[in-house]
Amino acid sequence: MTVDADAFLTDWHRIVAEKDRDGLRARLAEHVSLGAPPYWTKLEGRDVVHHLLGLILDTIEGFTYHREWREGAELALEFRGRVGELELQGIDLITLDERSRVANLDVLMRPAAAIAALREVIAPKMMAFFAAREKADGGRAGGT
Amino acid sequence: MTVDADAFLTDWHRIVAEKDRDGLRARLAEHVSLGAPPYWTKLEGRDVVHHLLGLILDTIEGFTYHREWREGAELALEFRGRVGELELQGIDLITLDERSRVANLDVLMRPAAAIAALREVIAPKMMAFFAAREKADGGRAGGT
Repeated sequence: MTVDADAFLTDWHRIVAEKDRDGLRARLAEHVSLGAPPYWTKLEGRDVVHHLLGLILDTIEGFTYHREWREGAELALEFRGRVGELELQGIDLITLDERSRVANLDVLMRPAAAIAALREVIAPKMMAFFAAREKADGGRAGGT
Repeated sequence: MTVDADAFLTDWHRIVAEKDRDGLRARLAEHVSLGAPPYWTKLEGRDVVHHLLGLILDTIEGFTYHREWREGAELALEFRGRVGELELQGIDLITLDERSRVANLDVLMRPAAAIAALREVIAPKMMAFFAAREKADGGRAGGT
């Protein structure tokens, strides 16, 4: 297959506008990696990345895309929004795989205060997500 | 005049590689604005932006450009580097004016710790720069 960035972008904009969680999941490669604004270490795997992106979309108010660049399978999508009182500017740097799904997504943002505010809201929810997964894994391990 | 992004990029890469302060200055519009990673409020004017960009280039070790996107007068240039022990990834979002000079530059970076480390080094130096300008202005005002 060849990368169809046009189709991806049309679908991606619709997914973000409608907060379509299932559509979002379908656009993530199984081993997708995500570089989140606060951390250097990447998050990996469709479940984790899908959950985090959902939290980000829920937390940033007035999320809108602005400038857009594409170069083959490499995309750069500028966005604006707010966390509480704080305005923010960010960019999604996306690498598509050969099936036009997100293989890697790095999210860069400014200002620092908005990154901190976003982390404040999202980090506890990601911790709860990881804890629930651990528990489910533990339960399965105990049952075998 | 028309924007010549190719010529700009060739020159810009040379300027960054050689840390050519005079060349950098010549590529900034008089009323250039800069959105720095830590702050929301933009810095404005060639002197201020030139000084800050020089400090950034001095402080980030191993500064290298990676992916590059262009769309007319709008450019997105990904970079990597280090501040002390911390690796960082950033992007320069550049708007060129009709003379192919930087009219606006937004710098977004991750992770948050690298933004904090960069601010730690640069903020005191920018304060000293602003204080010296104030003093110079005060001296001139006193002399007239």
